[in-house]
Amino acid sequence: MTGRTGHAWSVPMRPGPTNSMADVAGLRVGHAQRVGEGYLTGVSVVVAPPEGAVAGVDVRGAAPGTRETELLDPRNLVERVHAIVLTGGSAFGLSAACGVMQRLADEGIGFPVAGGVVPIVPSAVIYDLGRGGGFRATPDGELGAAAYDAAVAATPSASSASASSASASSASASSASASSVSAPAAAAPARNGSIGAGTGAVAGGLAGGVGTASAVLPSGVTVAALAVVNAAGSVLDPGGGLLSGTRYGLAGEFGDIGEPDLDEVARWQPVKAPSFNTTIGVVATDLTLSKAQCGKLAGVAHDGLARAIRPAHTMVDGDTVFAMSTCGRPGADTELHDVLAAGADVFSRAVAHAVLHATGREGAPAYLDVFPSARKRG
Amino acid sequence: MTGRTGHAWSVPMRPGPTNSMADVAGLRVGHAQRVGEGYLTGVSVVVAPPEGAVAGVDVRGAAPGTRETELLDPRNLVERVHAIVLTGGSAFGLSAACGVMQRLADEGIGFPVAGGVVPIVPSAVIYDLGRGGGFRATPDGELGAAAYDAAVAATPSASSASASSASASSASASSASASSVSAPAAAAPARNGSIGAGTGAVAGGLAGGVGTASAVLPSGVTVAALAVVNAAGSVLDPGGGLLSGTRYGLAGEFGDIGEPDLDEVARWQPVKAPSFNTTIGVVATDLTLSKAQCGKLAGVAHDGLARAIRPAHTMVDGDTVFAMSTCGRPGADTELHDVLAAGADVFSRAVAHAVLHATGREGAPAYLDVFPSARKRG
Repeated sequence: MTGRTGHAWSVPMRPGPTNSMADVAGLRVGHAQRVGEGYLTGVSVVVAPPEGAVAGVDVRGAAPGTRETELLDPRNLVERVHAIVLTGGSAFGLSAACGVMQRLADEGIGFPVAGGVVPIVPSAVIYDLGRGGGFRATPDGELGAAAYDAAVAATPSASSASASSASASSASASSASASSVSAPAAAAPARNGSIGAGTGAVAGGLAGGVGTASAVLPSGVTVAALAVVNAAGSVLDPGGGLLSGTRYGLAGEFGDIGEPDLDEVARWQPVKAPSFNTTIGVVATDLTLSKAQCGKLAGVAHDGLARAIRPAHTMVDGDTVFAMSTCGRPGADTELHDVLAAGADVFSRAVAHAVLHATGREGAPAYLDVFPSARKRG
Repeated sequence: MTGRTGHAWSVPMRPGPTNSMADVAGLRVGHAQRVGEGYLTGVSVVVAPPEGAVAGVDVRGAAPGTRETELLDPRNLVERVHAIVLTGGSAFGLSAACGVMQRLADEGIGFPVAGGVVPIVPSAVIYDLGRGGGFRATPDGELGAAAYDAAVAATPSASSASASSASASSASASSASASSVSAPAAAAPARNGSIGAGTGAVAGGLAGGVGTASAVLPSGVTVAALAVVNAAGSVLDPGGGLLSGTRYGLAGEFGDIGEPDLDEVARWQPVKAPSFNTTIGVVATDLTLSKAQCGKLAGVAHDGLARAIRPAHTMVDGDTVFAMSTCGRPGADTELHDVLAAGADVFSRAVAHAVLHATGREGAPAYLDVFPSARKRG
């Protein structure tokens, strides 16, 4: 699975410096979660540069929970979004976006209208109700704000450094992934795993979570994805145990992961719980794209979702992918093809990272606990 | 790749009697093609029962060529279609549908209006212009009618047996795949390969073609697909030579096909021609579905396309999938999930059959000629 060079029509790619969404210059990512006292859920946010990012969306699941997606139709007025929120809590969790809006408005970031700004924060949810014990223990505006603060703290910028001190004030049952960044020597916040919106996620009977990956094309364009994997479908190859998304890894990316032993595969009996699920995510690039092109990129990223999760887009999945362009690099239409192809692959890879890094728990074991032989001895 | 049992959330399935679209009771399939004198193209048609089939569509490619797709919007009037035409010839090839309409109208089949009927024949095209030498050597109404006649001849029914004699009258440069069926001992017409709309198809530098497959669910519901594979993307696994669609095969279906030797993979240097391409197809079931549910089924079938072809849905693909329901079996909403999942897989399998059976030619060699070791010695 590793170090494959790809066929001639796959342009050579390498991961960006962090192999994460943060490799798209100008984008900042933050996670916040609540665990305990009935909670097992959280919020992830991708914060655009202050001027916003051009965005699009493709909703392919049959049971979505979203807000501010209609304005992303290319026919509609607003061109740029200021953040995208991915959250647990099913439709209740949409409250998280309210907290992000407040933070952005406090900084004067938003769509300018008479008297102020209206921050544009499209959002989508996963269904994780009750996984921490409390059906109504769902993300709220406070947790959304904490995720925003974590994003700002993780990558301080001149315009937002003043907000980082707020991250310590989140609710007692909350933790913002980057809340300790004020000490420069602290470890970098986790980018993958059971964090943010993926805190309570499952993936075909395994622990799901948040995953991210990036790719730098020969032209220098960066494409990255952040996925919250909470899938009804399996993340494994048909009848096997290979984590499907690893198949699309760049050279060395999943070098220590392979096909597990057959006896482990034979023993694996996932619980097929009839439940709502959903994989949501963001794919982003610095290549200048139109709203319509962002919508196309979001649609093709769903191909990466489908290659990593099977089945996908079902009646019990609300699978939704947003796309963002920071417009940091002038683009030629000829580059769009490569960005689309990379967008699909980077989403598959993000799904794999989510599952590999998720923390196992009762009823949703970690992939490498179920298939320890998938980790190859060096 | 073979005999895998699948995970718990894949319901056990077996192929139907012919492992083809014809396993959906009431549907008939015909192909006609022209080869030589500048031509290398053709037409495939799926003919509904006389009362029509409920249908939907999902257009996911960025460069589609279609007709009668707008009426498939669930908000629009017409509920049932009478045939679906898949054709070569890019937008010129849409003429083929005119011939199918004439045949249907002659039989009195269509949407009833004052004075007669209007047959409803949604259609989609692949881009194969010039592959036989003549840029304007494209399918016309006559070739469409020949494909219709082949469909009728292949599965005579009380209502249409009278039409079968017409199949011999197709143009001199034409051949209808089932034109010899009047002699019962003749070989059955080919269901897969370089026939019909797939006659001039390519698939990532290999020969493309027509492929079909079916699945019977434990409930007895049948789901089938017919794909015309003319893809810009690769039909092989990333960096390898396994035909991706075979990964989703049912027990024994691709029993003699596996991963080719690495030296064959290393030698393979496909030409990446900058050209329009397109994979189009039909997925069908006897489960009663609404128009909207058919649209959903078509959408999820694109997941099967994406798993078998990478990249897919690009700016130079017009990837379009129709879905049909004969409404032959009453359905419960709970069955829709399984039909959706099966619809994706059966489409992947159809893509694999198309490539395995396609005839190689200059510039587009057959898969098994490039990778002979993929055929396993028994």
